[in-house]
Amino acid sequence: MPLRVRYYEADQQAVVYHGWYLNYFDEAFMAWLESLDFGYGTMADVGVDVMLVHSEIDWHGSLRWPNDAEIAASLVAVGKSSITVDYAAVVDGTPMCSARTVYVTVDHKDFTRIPVPEPMRDALGHPAPLRRQRAGR
Amino acid sequence: MPLRVRYYEADQQAVVYHGWYLNYFDEAFMAWLESLDFGYGTMADVGVDVMLVHSEIDWHGSLRWPNDAEIAASLVAVGKSSITVDYAAVVDGTPMCSARTVYVTVDHKDFTRIPVPEPMRDALGHPAPLRRQRAGR
Amino acid sequence: MPLRVRYYEADQQAVVYHGWYLNYFDEAFMAWLESLDFGYGTMADVGVDVMLVHSEIDWHGSLRWPNDAEIAASLVAVGKSSITVDYAAVVDGTPMCSARTVYVTVDHKDFTRIPVPEPMRDALGHPAPLRRQRAGR
Amino acid sequence: MPLRVRYYEADQQAVVYHGWYLNYFDEAFMAWLESLDFGYGTMADVGVDVMLVHSEIDWHGSLRWPNDAEIAASLVAVGKSSITVDYAAVVDGTPMCSARTVYVTVDHKDFTRIPVPEPMRDALGHPAPLRRQRAGR
Repeated sequence: MPLRVRYYEADQQAVVYHGWYLNYFDEAFMAWLESLDFGYGTMADVGVDVMLVHSEIDWHGSLRWPNDAEIAASLVAVGKSSITVDYAAVVDGTPMCSARTVYVTVDHKDFTRIPVPEPMRDALGHPAPLRRQRAGR
Repeated sequence: MPLRVRYYEADQQAVVYHGWYLNYFDEAFMAWLESLDFGYGTMADVGVDVMLVHSEIDWHGSLRWPNDAEIAASLVAVGKSSITVDYAAVVDGTPMCSARTVYVTVDHKDFTRIPVPEPMRDALGHPAPLRRQRAGR
Repeated sequence: MPLRVRYYEADQQAVVYHGWYLNYFDEAFMAWLESLDFGYGTMADVGVDVMLVHSEIDWHGSLRWPNDAEIAASLVAVGKSSITVDYAAVVDGTPMCSARTVYVTVDHKDFTRIPVPEPMRDALGHPAPLRRQRAGR
Repeated sequence: MPLRVRYYEADQQAVVYHGWYLNYFDEAFMAWLESLDFGYGTMADVGVDVMLVHSEIDWHGSLRWPNDAEIAASLVAVGKSSITVDYAAVVDGTPMCSARTVYVTVDHKDFTRIPVPEPMRDALGHPAPLRRQRAGR
């Protein structure tokens, strides 16, 4: 997903304030689901929604305004009722921030946990993590 | 309402980015309604909600991080189905930003326009504008 | 400027929270200046920056997630040391929000007010307001 | 640090959008440093600033509007040039979100990495993690 840094996202250090990265990744998550033909409309049809339960984020550098960046999203794993996704924010080929995020699948009406629906599992395809597992984890 | 400027609200010019002021005023609006014993809980009980339809904002200076500021809110007028409120963001007695905002009252379920309910009209009390009307307006 | 509403910009009423519109218009302002070949890089070269001093916003409807909207920006007037710009947020041809915003031109180092530089004046071109003047204003 | 959830921080699911938590923790970090008499003013005097390099966040529940929450911050470790801090967002005694965040200390002018200054190390005091180390980590 191409990302254009917005002016107000940069702070007094002239770099993107760290809180915005989760927003970028969230936007990339939805764009990624749509690219898999399983966007929010389809999810609602199937009766599933997702809730974020865990995120690990590493900053190696900083996005700046007015950077044109790319946000990459890639599947790490599909569990019984969870989906793990890797993200990277890249500027000119250099990863500035990476994240691994775990979502749980929930009923889209009452938000109780439900298994990943089969059509969603099919759409998500095969894992291709962006981050290597670290030793001891 | 006392306001503590948050770090991420300041931009690269080291002043609060202008987009945050509407958020400050929104927060002050709710604090003000609560101070009148007509907070969001009461509004829901009465079946009324508000929608912002117009806002005029003037910046005379800038809030900075880590300013402790005050946000003032005061009634300008109650119409048939509208409420006009003045706001000011003040630092050390100096107004940095002022605004006049018009809300319309709507049914809290279907968002159709409804008259200002009598108990709300009573709670709002008498007008005490912060901004003087400008000539020719 | 095409705009894709981000998920977190919608509030509990399922419409875009009003505070985000100023951000959309700010982004459109910069995109518009770039389209005139007078983007922030050029402004810095010429030694000019802008500060927002006044904004009037009218909401006629609401953007929703995941709307694809358009933000229009158009010149209203260039004063001695000020620039007035009209904005409109449009979904499927329907204007949902419009604004008129006044910027003052300042020295990009010390933020003191300076006249609109001639090259900027030339780049801005001729006024084409989106909003009609209202009677009595 | 007491926290009052702001209206615009809640999303269409009527819970606080996950991206805001990093902002809450950032605000708590600064309030915590000030409570240790080592706020941003003192940091600037000593010539040190911090940059966030890693954050792990777990959501166990959700803040909602208009919750009154508490944000707890507590020291985990002080390394040669890093500081690790635990956070928890608590509503009515129930932790809804917890995080462990690693900052590196940098020169406040050129942002190169520097050791944690002795006065800062003294001010930070003794570790008191909020999160227990998980097995295998």
